[in-house]
Amino acid sequence: MIKVAIVGASGYTGVELLRLLLNHPQVEITCVTSRQYAGRPISAVFPSLMGRNSLIFDPVDVDLVAARAELVFTALPHKAAMEIVPDLLRAGCRVVDLSADYRLRDAATYEQWYEPHTSVELLSEAVYGLPELYRSQIKGARLVANPGCYPTSVALALAPLIEQNKVVLSSLIIDSKSGTSGAGRSAKVGSLFCEVNEGFAAYGVASHRHTPEIEQTLTVLAGQPVAVSFTPHLLPVNRGILSTCYATLKAPVSTEELVALYRQRYADEPFVRIHPAGELPNVAYVRGSNFCNIGLVSDPRTGRVIVVSVIDNLLKGASSQAVQNMNLMAALEETCGLGDLPLFP
Amino acid sequence: MIKVAIVGASGYTGVELLRLLLNHPQVEITCVTSRQYAGRPISAVFPSLMGRNSLIFDPVDVDLVAARAELVFTALPHKAAMEIVPDLLRAGCRVVDLSADYRLRDAATYEQWYEPHTSVELLSEAVYGLPELYRSQIKGARLVANPGCYPTSVALALAPLIEQNKVVLSSLIIDSKSGTSGAGRSAKVGSLFCEVNEGFAAYGVASHRHTPEIEQTLTVLAGQPVAVSFTPHLLPVNRGILSTCYATLKAPVSTEELVALYRQRYADEPFVRIHPAGELPNVAYVRGSNFCNIGLVSDPRTGRVIVVSVIDNLLKGASSQAVQNMNLMAALEETCGLGDLPLFP
Amino acid sequence: MIKVAIVGASGYTGVELLRLLLNHPQVEITCVTSRQYAGRPISAVFPSLMGRNSLIFDPVDVDLVAARAELVFTALPHKAAMEIVPDLLRAGCRVVDLSADYRLRDAATYEQWYEPHTSVELLSEAVYGLPELYRSQIKGARLVANPGCYPTSVALALAPLIEQNKVVLSSLIIDSKSGTSGAGRSAKVGSLFCEVNEGFAAYGVASHRHTPEIEQTLTVLAGQPVAVSFTPHLLPVNRGILSTCYATLKAPVSTEELVALYRQRYADEPFVRIHPAGELPNVAYVRGSNFCNIGLVSDPRTGRVIVVSVIDNLLKGASSQAVQNMNLMAALEETCGLGDLPLFP
Amino acid sequence: MIKVAIVGASGYTGVELLRLLLNHPQVEITCVTSRQYAGRPISAVFPSLMGRNSLIFDPVDVDLVAARAELVFTALPHKAAMEIVPDLLRAGCRVVDLSADYRLRDAATYEQWYEPHTSVELLSEAVYGLPELYRSQIKGARLVANPGCYPTSVALALAPLIEQNKVVLSSLIIDSKSGTSGAGRSAKVGSLFCEVNEGFAAYGVASHRHTPEIEQTLTVLAGQPVAVSFTPHLLPVNRGILSTCYATLKAPVSTEELVALYRQRYADEPFVRIHPAGELPNVAYVRGSNFCNIGLVSDPRTGRVIVVSVIDNLLKGASSQAVQNMNLMAALEETCGLGDLPLFP
Repeated sequence: MIKVAIVGASGYTGVELLRLLLNHPQVEITCVTSRQYAGRPISAVFPSLMGRNSLIFDPVDVDLVAARAELVFTALPHKAAMEIVPDLLRAGCRVVDLSADYRLRDAATYEQWYEPHTSVELLSEAVYGLPELYRSQIKGARLVANPGCYPTSVALALAPLIEQNKVVLSSLIIDSKSGTSGAGRSAKVGSLFCEVNEGFAAYGVASHRHTPEIEQTLTVLAGQPVAVSFTPHLLPVNRGILSTCYATLKAPVSTEELVALYRQRYADEPFVRIHPAGELPNVAYVRGSNFCNIGLVSDPRTGRVIVVSVIDNLLKGASSQAVQNMNLMAALEETCGLGDLPLFP
Repeated sequence: MIKVAIVGASGYTGVELLRLLLNHPQVEITCVTSRQYAGRPISAVFPSLMGRNSLIFDPVDVDLVAARAELVFTALPHKAAMEIVPDLLRAGCRVVDLSADYRLRDAATYEQWYEPHTSVELLSEAVYGLPELYRSQIKGARLVANPGCYPTSVALALAPLIEQNKVVLSSLIIDSKSGTSGAGRSAKVGSLFCEVNEGFAAYGVASHRHTPEIEQTLTVLAGQPVAVSFTPHLLPVNRGILSTCYATLKAPVSTEELVALYRQRYADEPFVRIHPAGELPNVAYVRGSNFCNIGLVSDPRTGRVIVVSVIDNLLKGASSQAVQNMNLMAALEETCGLGDLPLFP
Repeated sequence: MIKVAIVGASGYTGVELLRLLLNHPQVEITCVTSRQYAGRPISAVFPSLMGRNSLIFDPVDVDLVAARAELVFTALPHKAAMEIVPDLLRAGCRVVDLSADYRLRDAATYEQWYEPHTSVELLSEAVYGLPELYRSQIKGARLVANPGCYPTSVALALAPLIEQNKVVLSSLIIDSKSGTSGAGRSAKVGSLFCEVNEGFAAYGVASHRHTPEIEQTLTVLAGQPVAVSFTPHLLPVNRGILSTCYATLKAPVSTEELVALYRQRYADEPFVRIHPAGELPNVAYVRGSNFCNIGLVSDPRTGRVIVVSVIDNLLKGASSQAVQNMNLMAALEETCGLGDLPLFP
Repeated sequence: MIKVAIVGASGYTGVELLRLLLNHPQVEITCVTSRQYAGRPISAVFPSLMGRNSLIFDPVDVDLVAARAELVFTALPHKAAMEIVPDLLRAGCRVVDLSADYRLRDAATYEQWYEPHTSVELLSEAVYGLPELYRSQIKGARLVANPGCYPTSVALALAPLIEQNKVVLSSLIIDSKSGTSGAGRSAKVGSLFCEVNEGFAAYGVASHRHTPEIEQTLTVLAGQPVAVSFTPHLLPVNRGILSTCYATLKAPVSTEELVALYRQRYADEPFVRIHPAGELPNVAYVRGSNFCNIGLVSDPRTGRVIVVSVIDNLLKGASSQAVQNMNLMAALEETCGLGDLPLFP
């Protein structure tokens, strides 16, 4: 049994980590922290978890966490993460950080899109926690930077095309749509039910912070600089990200050939599912699971390929991917505790 | 490993049975039938189940089913169920029937609310599959009539009050609200997204077929005839039933005392959770799980108690309760394969 | 043209008043106040109103308001309303107050359910603004207390039964469900999209502040004290209230007779529509309009009548009813500016 | 008063035409047809319209329609429209056709994307009813082809850029999202609440029939052939289309300059509203109205402009645009009967 802590467990990714880890056969949750709810039982804050545990939120305290846990999930906003992660590592914990603080390898890029970085020395050590691309590095890592939700959906959608040099790199356009849980659990007018329900809008056009993270992954795959247009939208659903990706093909290739290419690329991946030609994914097909579903269409009229990927933003886009990383770090079966099939309808 | 079949697996309760049984450690699904989809892979009909199985829908054929399975879940409409269940029993299968056909002990009552009953001889044998009330009978049963969704939510909400003779039986009023999956997966204008979304309405007022099922359970508990007002409403959510139950108290009793009474009654029940005084359940607290959450308020101004219960209509109201019954029938751990915690948000 | 002001126009009832009054042929909006948004154009705060006006939010200032407007809509929280209404009247304005502060005639009852009342002297003058019950008094009123949303739905549902002495007064149970706009536009975790969407719960059971308002109206109609059980629930829709009302009949009466009774009672009412026997209302049938739809069922099995009413909580439950009151106060056609038909789907 | 008929009034565009025309001051509805509901009052089929009319659905009969109406709205599926429109014109009616049958000027293109065209002789006469582009031709037209919902949102979004030759024509990518009412009111499993709610998916990728309609409009504007990538998605909302349009700029131009360009282009248009730089539209800002809102961002990193437009798919995308066309054809004020402000929330 691995002893784990969750630091900052009062948001939506926190409650999902709790749900997954309470049912994980190889894990004991030994510490759960929340500044806001310290002293309260988690089942009072999240009645969905009533009856299966008697955990109490602790205040955030590095010594306490390190004394109780070998591995720590930090589910904090960016900036707050880099204020505590170095101490946790120093105290001997391994860390899966769900924030953006260790995802970008280049401090200057981080500072351009976020703010001054106060933990630059760890950037070269941190491993980007996308198992489908970085499995071997994750296994030995002390610090894993769990990917962003949009970047996960985009990297898995585009990796086979870029690895195989099939598309014009300057042509990449990514139109993404995310469920509202991606906006977090803090009280904001813009996240109120009546503002979101029966609505739909783009936001952060040409300025969203996941852009450099997407570009970093694609640049590594391409071996040359990649810049993309990335447009996120807010969907009136609780969960789910769908990314519609457009790329100009270097040479004509049929939908069937591309489906075959994707199937081959992901043949050994337990959590990536490729739709047959003629079928496309729906966010509902992955709800509540660690799966990424991908479908695609080659359009001879325009010479473009359109790739559509879906994930559950709270799971493959955050908490279950974090557990997948933990499994790899701890040399457990990679799928351990991640067997949930999607909940439909 | 128990070999099981699902007859009529193309609806929402069918896909939930598939989801649960594919992950059940003691079950092997050996046969899945659907008139409509015979010959097609289940992952083509339900892409949420892609990749974890290679099952194909078979046509409905008693001999085939009986040859392959020890225990059969019949997830058919009423009338269709009683046309096949006798044959399945005769062929040696045990059956959990999710239809209404074997729930009412009295054929005349069935015929008054439904239609002519063609399998009357089995009514005295069939056990009403509500484990919290009929656990011991279920264990030995050959035929279990899985309860209706509304009746499950009501029986669990009112049993402690009636068992303890706390309320005036003629005063019972039940105002229930169900998610739209309760209407099934057949194509009807009234179930279209645009008809349901942003809408809310009562239906079947004073005439819903779950009324006699509710009354039968309460009558047995009370030891005398009980008639109730029961009003169902259609909620614009996928899943969940909330029943608000009103009863006049025979003598004043505080909310705290009632909470204590409920906690004692359900102390050994793994799937019933009682909220502390001052808290009330939300259908979101049980989504995707086999739990029933109950909260209540005693109102000294009017002398009434208001009990609010929630279940997931597709799970404790149908498919996971059916698995719970199977576990009991097969002498497995009652909670086996039912460990899912609710998905929130 | 009447010159009107809206004090506290930054919430959902405020934006609805703006929408209605901008299109009202006899009204000029001369002042719109908001503490929070003072100085900003209303079209920046409410982009739905772009392009049809150039109004700017003013800070709240009685002298400014009174200098510009004859009639003032106060759309403030309770307590805030009674701090400004006396000054507005003193300055010569007529007022339609959308808060709870002047709805209860008895100060002691107000203080029991709300807080100390600082404007008791106006309680006897204020007219309860439900035109279907108090039309003649509203016409001459200086101060109209616009009814609460739930109480409007209940009063219209039950008035004919109580006026005609058809039901046992002690038997009244009201189970109401409201869209989320009823919770207002302030940022609270409980009103976030992910907390409300796919959820449903009761709240304020046996303790909601609209209870005494409902009881006051029914008591006047009955000529004797009436106490009710009132249970509100939060619906995952933007707009709409549906109240399911239960009452024991004093003598048997058929659904058809009751429908006839309701049709006669509301024959001259332009905004009340009675469904024929066998049909029931849906909140979707009144969305965006000032209508109240009512359907009912007499149940001979239990001797009860079930009455179901629906309104748009922001309109007949707040803003359009306020405009209806203004029309009466200003001797305009009662339906002026209220011709919108419901938006379906 | 113009006497109008609505042929095929039982769908969502039909009920919206009824709602608008019942409140139109210059219109008398003299005939409403429906094959399915012939003989039934429209208020029984659409209870939202109760009480304001006594119209009865008639069977479809050209002579009857022509005897009663000067102008006819045909709200039929494609193919059904071209089977009746020639007869209506021959009988002396003017027609606004809401189907696709007369939108494409080239019969071969129609037949490539739809099916054999049986009314080719009218294609050269039919005027494409987008007032912002074809106002003068609409005024004298006998037959107006009311534009598709997606094409309306795209044409208004891109017209200024193409008219001013600002973008590389081969670079156009349009990612659109539509509310579910766009799928119509027929009973299909794919349109059920539980299939759409909490879901999101692309459909018709690289094959949607609105593609040639979009390309026809842009080709005329550009004066040379334009081919686009067009990807529609199904949104879990009742109403609203949002189109996110990507184009490579021929030369750098700032967001502010582009906003100014759009404001100038649409300065005299009563139904097009341009957001200031830094703001983007939401489908909620136009719900229930004839408005099109447009926002845009110029991205110097990629050299692209992203234009986002929103309309209510049932209104500016169908029924209210049809009324706008009728107003032009009948020499009424173009905005007559179209004054509704958007319903928010």
